Amino acid sequence: MDPRITIVTLGVNDVAAATQFYESVFGWARTSASQEGITFFQLNGFLLALFKEEELAKDAHVPAQRDGFRGVSLAHNLRSEQEVDGLFRDLEAKGVTILKKPEKVFWGGYSGYFADIDNHLWEVAYNPYLPLDQAGNVTGQ
Amino acid sequence: MDPRITIVTLGVNDVAAATQFYESVFGWARTSASQEGITFFQLNGFLLALFKEEELAKDAHVPAQRDGFRGVSLAHNLRSEQEVDGLFRDLEAKGVTILKKPEKVFWGGYSGYFADIDNHLWEVAYNPYLPLDQAGNVTGQ
Repeated sequence: MDPRITIVTLGVNDVAAATQFYESVFGWARTSASQEGITFFQLNGFLLALFKEEELAKDAHVPAQRDGFRGVSLAHNLRSEQEVDGLFRDLEAKGVTILKKPEKVFWGGYSGYFADIDNHLWEVAYNPYLPLDQAGNVTGQ
Repeated sequence: MDPRITIVTLGVNDVAAATQFYESVFGWARTSASQEGITFFQLNGFLLALFKEEELAKDAHVPAQRDGFRGVSLAHNLRSEQEVDGLFRDLEAKGVTILKKPEKVFWGGYSGYFADIDNHLWEVAYNPYLPLDQAGNVTGQ
């Protein structure tokens, strides 16, 4: 697994309010891929996403109660569904806690989740709409 | 504030055990700046840090109880103490919740913390030992 994070997602109570905070306080501009339910900011080679906390929990197949759920996920994107499956096979073989086996998801991609030993959420995804440069970074969204 | 994250820190129960997980499962190699109490991995233009969860809470001046504390921080590093002070003045003027005013810290740097409206922790720091490239990214640690 390359040492690379594609998206840091922060679970928020109200996406519009949180977006307003990041826009007005930080002076950041959301990307054109942002929608009503999710906001993206292009950072240094990766994306910061703001997403409703309960939706993030649902997406990762974990309970939304704060106790145990941190409301943050780290995404590692790959270039195909096959690469995602391959990494999950490798993780399972290593005894890692798989929260959600990779599956086709409503936004048109393919994604699964696992937890590290402290319950930090890692998503491994293939997103056909998020091009990666040669190094594997997202740029210029 | 530039759209940039320098370090993503994950609060962990046992730094050695968590490091072992990332090394054996992901195959990542910690940087030479890693110490007994903290592990760094060089990612795509930023660092992932593993740090004891109670220490992270203490560093940010927040209670360590999980309810409300997410055990994750996002660091935005600048090039001088003056730049850190300037950004905190700007944040305060915008009504942002300052958790810890910037101060000299034991590891030789200068750092403060604030919270976004969902209690995600942001650290703003000057670290004389962590060189930034022209773009402001950490590279080749």
